[in-house]
Amino acid sequence: MVSNEVNQYIENLIPARSEHVDRMEQFAKQHDIPIMELSGIETLLTYVRLKKPNTILEVGTAIGYSATRMALACETAKIISIEKDEERYNIAKENIKALHLDDRITLLLGDANELQSQVAHYAPYDFIFIDAAKGQYQNFFEHYSSMLSQEGMIITDNVLFRGYVVDGSGIESRRRRALVRKINTFNQYIMQHPDYHSIILPVGDGMMVSIRKT
Amino acid sequence: MVSNEVNQYIENLIPARSEHVDRMEQFAKQHDIPIMELSGIETLLTYVRLKKPNTILEVGTAIGYSATRMALACETAKIISIEKDEERYNIAKENIKALHLDDRITLLLGDANELQSQVAHYAPYDFIFIDAAKGQYQNFFEHYSSMLSQEGMIITDNVLFRGYVVDGSGIESRRRRALVRKINTFNQYIMQHPDYHSIILPVGDGMMVSIRKT
Repeated sequence: MVSNEVNQYIENLIPARSEHVDRMEQFAKQHDIPIMELSGIETLLTYVRLKKPNTILEVGTAIGYSATRMALACETAKIISIEKDEERYNIAKENIKALHLDDRITLLLGDANELQSQVAHYAPYDFIFIDAAKGQYQNFFEHYSSMLSQEGMIITDNVLFRGYVVDGSGIESRRRRALVRKINTFNQYIMQHPDYHSIILPVGDGMMVSIRKT
Repeated sequence: MVSNEVNQYIENLIPARSEHVDRMEQFAKQHDIPIMELSGIETLLTYVRLKKPNTILEVGTAIGYSATRMALACETAKIISIEKDEERYNIAKENIKALHLDDRITLLLGDANELQSQVAHYAPYDFIFIDAAKGQYQNFFEHYSSMLSQEGMIITDNVLFRGYVVDGSGIESRRRRALVRKINTFNQYIMQHPDYHSIILPVGDGMMVSIRKT
């Protein structure tokens, strides 16, 4: 992956965020809740700022950090975000309310594999961001890409899985080896997909950017 | 920077290019002419595909590799590209003609610091790509950002300079140390610039993505 020194150099140059955003970052750190790395979220936001999506679907809300940052980066976007962990869902709801973004961010509690009809209600989506259970990426992509608008794009996070997909020789757990194989299959599937131009960025835990061919 | 293994993993997944593009990549390799790394150009193209610029300014044509790839990725774009080395300029001209892109790519021979009035003739630009003498980046940015359209963006390549900007302790040449200081100053200047949202991607030799605030 990217060396710590390079990542630190880049992150040190990123301007300070607002007080609310800063508080969310601190909360995640204190409670050991994984939110996106700073360089990762800033990279994601370049695409949000360019794309200016009217509708965003996020799979994996966690505490609402990326949803609020996307909402703040694109003031016309409406966001549907799915979270299956009820505790995180409740924290996200509070965070979004505190930032007065509840009119633009709709949270859905449940498993992304089971919420398709609810999600379809708000389709089509101009931008889909997948940041959830890595073993389900192929399913998520197949389910939700059918709800992508004609000129839409999809970003899938964590596709390098701490570098394990590149070199998995040190993995002892059988379950983790199976997960690595699944992500590898997904990466090959997307990079060769006839309907998308895709690239993997070595940012954060590996970010797949897929732009629908028009 | 990014480890070789990670970069190789990503590049192995990138689909084959057309015969013409492949020939250019081979030519550059054989003649030791630096063109963008494969992962770098594919990252650049994600932004071109999203932005769909009508006009692109490129500072640093080399043999025309990135100009032709941008033209092929966005079929409505007109590109102005500057090169000061006459031999490379001539090779680029041939490559562009061979791909029948000479009606969309205009090459200018000369120093980017001296061609401003010619370049202004085709302004404003929706997309500016700077990939030339690193010591001149601040000048290039200041000269040409004034020709950027209201919703334009600028990508500046090689801003991590093989990692020297992160750790320059091993540099023996005084000239190189001065260059590293210049790039560092440039990076800080752009990342704090009030008119742009910017991020450095650890792709290729370091890619600065700057989106004009609207």
